[in-house]
Amino acid sequence: MAADNDFVKEITKKSVDFSAWYVDVVRKAELADYSPMKGMMVIRPYGYEVWELLRDQLDRMFKETGHRNAYFPLFIPESFLQKEAEHVEGFAPEVAWVTSGGGEVLEERLAVRPTSEAIICSMYAKWVKSWRDLPLLYNQWANVVRWEKVTRLFLRTTEFLWQEGHTVHATAEEAEEETLRMLGIYRRLAEEYLAIPVVTGRKSDSEKFAGAVRTYAIEMLMPDGKALQAGTSHNLGQNFAKAFNIRYESREQKLEYAWQTSWGSTTRLVGALVMTHGDDSGLVLPPRVAPVQAVIVPISAGNWRETVLLHAQRLLDELKAAGVRAHLDDRDTFTPGWKYADWEMRGVPLRVEVGPKDIDKHQAVLVSRVDRKKSFVPWDGLAAEVKRQLEAIQGELYARALAFRDANTHDARSYAELRDAMAGGRGFIRCGWCGGRDCEAKVKADTSATIRVILDPPPPGFDACVACGGKAAHAVLFAKSY
Amino acid sequence: MAADNDFVKEITKKSVDFSAWYVDVVRKAELADYSPMKGMMVIRPYGYEVWELLRDQLDRMFKETGHRNAYFPLFIPESFLQKEAEHVEGFAPEVAWVTSGGGEVLEERLAVRPTSEAIICSMYAKWVKSWRDLPLLYNQWANVVRWEKVTRLFLRTTEFLWQEGHTVHATAEEAEEETLRMLGIYRRLAEEYLAIPVVTGRKSDSEKFAGAVRTYAIEMLMPDGKALQAGTSHNLGQNFAKAFNIRYESREQKLEYAWQTSWGSTTRLVGALVMTHGDDSGLVLPPRVAPVQAVIVPISAGNWRETVLLHAQRLLDELKAAGVRAHLDDRDTFTPGWKYADWEMRGVPLRVEVGPKDIDKHQAVLVSRVDRKKSFVPWDGLAAEVKRQLEAIQGELYARALAFRDANTHDARSYAELRDAMAGGRGFIRCGWCGGRDCEAKVKADTSATIRVILDPPPPGFDACVACGGKAAHAVLFAKSY
Repeated sequence: MAADNDFVKEITKKSVDFSAWYVDVVRKAELADYSPMKGMMVIRPYGYEVWELLRDQLDRMFKETGHRNAYFPLFIPESFLQKEAEHVEGFAPEVAWVTSGGGEVLEERLAVRPTSEAIICSMYAKWVKSWRDLPLLYNQWANVVRWEKVTRLFLRTTEFLWQEGHTVHATAEEAEEETLRMLGIYRRLAEEYLAIPVVTGRKSDSEKFAGAVRTYAIEMLMPDGKALQAGTSHNLGQNFAKAFNIRYESREQKLEYAWQTSWGSTTRLVGALVMTHGDDSGLVLPPRVAPVQAVIVPISAGNWRETVLLHAQRLLDELKAAGVRAHLDDRDTFTPGWKYADWEMRGVPLRVEVGPKDIDKHQAVLVSRVDRKKSFVPWDGLAAEVKRQLEAIQGELYARALAFRDANTHDARSYAELRDAMAGGRGFIRCGWCGGRDCEAKVKADTSATIRVILDPPPPGFDACVACGGKAAHAVLFAKSY
Repeated sequence: MAADNDFVKEITKKSVDFSAWYVDVVRKAELADYSPMKGMMVIRPYGYEVWELLRDQLDRMFKETGHRNAYFPLFIPESFLQKEAEHVEGFAPEVAWVTSGGGEVLEERLAVRPTSEAIICSMYAKWVKSWRDLPLLYNQWANVVRWEKVTRLFLRTTEFLWQEGHTVHATAEEAEEETLRMLGIYRRLAEEYLAIPVVTGRKSDSEKFAGAVRTYAIEMLMPDGKALQAGTSHNLGQNFAKAFNIRYESREQKLEYAWQTSWGSTTRLVGALVMTHGDDSGLVLPPRVAPVQAVIVPISAGNWRETVLLHAQRLLDELKAAGVRAHLDDRDTFTPGWKYADWEMRGVPLRVEVGPKDIDKHQAVLVSRVDRKKSFVPWDGLAAEVKRQLEAIQGELYARALAFRDANTHDARSYAELRDAMAGGRGFIRCGWCGGRDCEAKVKADTSATIRVILDPPPPGFDACVACGGKAAHAVLFAKSY
């Protein structure tokens, strides 16, 4: 089958060179391409359709929890970025600066937003007056720019698409609740739609968002044993409220600083999908975020356009009517075998084959992208069976990813164990940590692993710091990260 | 009713000062606000919801006609912008330039995209190889930046949101067909969803897109007698294909330059809605693009929370189940009268009042935003009646706008007539034009009117140029434009 397919042969094997395989799949499945703008990618229609599906699902979950979308300016005057000290320190090195416009040199440099706290908080200071205005639950879908030295398609690009939520609350408790609620929504998106299990938890101080009191994240484990931070939710406390003077009159008619959160997830999620589920034949998409869930390939023999194709079209209509994102590949310039390999490379979860023999038997052949298992299904009830198999594939992909994650999560009781794990297959390493910055820095210097999250509640048995042997303040997950 | 409403009293009357009224409505209905970034606006949630509704409708129409979304970089290297001579001449004066990033001065300046032909065509040159790759029908939803001296909320802002379609075709005929097809989609959006009649037609050379062979536009007439260009569709011919070397191998195995189109519409459409339909009480939204189509206001008297509110909630559920975007205003800090005025200001097409007397009669009171006409409707069948009235309001708003447009479209047979019209109530002025740039420029200098479109087919009776008296090559529509 693969013999007549040039595409598949050209893909580096996942087990041979994971990085090269990743780039091959992203480019040959036409998810994205390099652009003449160094570090910036082009998201091609197939990749953008995946993004639309996960974006729309996130958007629905945001709206169900009372959030509304808004849009704030792309440019942030330098003086605004400087208002919150930690924030500017964290982001200034990555900023792209606009210095002239309309043929004139500007008096003040403008940052192309690396994130929008500074411009959004300046508006919140105008809009928030009373406890009646709270909570204020806004989200923005936008592009942001962060100047990166080393970039990788979807995973780290100088410009990326994302959503950034920015909320304002009357109390510290409500802000913390919101921070965790949105973390939960990221977890749901990852697990229920992307079929990728995540660990959630708080970041150590050295890994938190510049300007936040506390940062929480969802962390995924990739097949190369590295962790991918795939969504973050920040409790900003009153840091920005004080920097931007966001105050409200309480029910008790006292003027109080507000409490805030922000949270974001990006086009990086598409890269996570590729890495987690793909195989040597290319992309494998979980059905819930697959632009094409089932592709119908008619067997082209004899007068197939007058016979097989008509039945294929009828099946297409039936699948579409049942709400399946189905596509009929009726190109006559390619053989069925070439089409099989082509759609496998593009990760379509289910293939529906229809040939002359199937028509005699009033059946179609379903082939799963995950294991190529074939099933012969009568036309009567085909749509229901396709939907059942799609759900099964969704579950299978999640189970497979979970098994990998669990098999690659290890406990380290000593520094030697930690070092050995990081020198070998890596993965998530659970261990105790005293809470000291020096110990965290030492592990990073020696193994390049960083604390991905602080586990809460702490699992038992991690009483000593893996680095210094002192009393552990936390149980944490170390990993090398993207 | 308005007596206890501070908001309404604060709105400038539309008839007294149209410009001030416009800004009042945009800001007080919370569609948008000024930002600290000069010339850039913040689109607030209510305004963004209107944008989402019209964006989603356009997106559906694009996809129904075979277009796919993609995403291209925000920055365009200066050398790419310069490849098409007319293009750079037209856009360079409006560009915002990025000159440093990541702490270093860049070797080449980067334009923040004012439009994306230059970056997109550089990719098309890589992707288009054979006639089999054509047509290539892509669209992008994005932000763009054009440095503007004078800005107005939604109508002209330094940054705006838009969609830009970019297509590639094998023949000149197909490109022209596509150009007109997309013009037709803009017309449908305007007339069927925004309830705004448009004139469509070709632009004169002095008004066409920088780099295009032919530009077509939809033009709306605003209540102040000025024209608003609300969507443009460009036939680019082979100009960009030659500048960027976009060539394909034809069926006859010859290497040919491709033919292209581009077309765009922007957040300006929200401004068009405000101006066209609004009145002295504020915004009036056509139901098809109203985030809230029907607002239920319970009459708060006595123990209303235990009685009236329960019925109001039931009606809300019924309306929502019927697919109506309904909202229940159950705030107890405001009187019903205040709420009426507040929702009128926000342009909600239909108000549903429910009070104790209505409950006795098993009815609700519907009040139209357009003429405040009341109708008493039994609960049984309420949702159907609400939907019927919403459709009627949609039709009424269109008819009203069309009547205004027709009443303000005048023929000018002489230069004096043209000048008088432009000195008075303005409007669309139909007249003959010899096709000369000098005549066009003279009219602009004398009256500030420009040719909005060339009428095709030409209406009869415009045989002489309104400016020079020579033989008319075209019948055109002159107007002062936004």
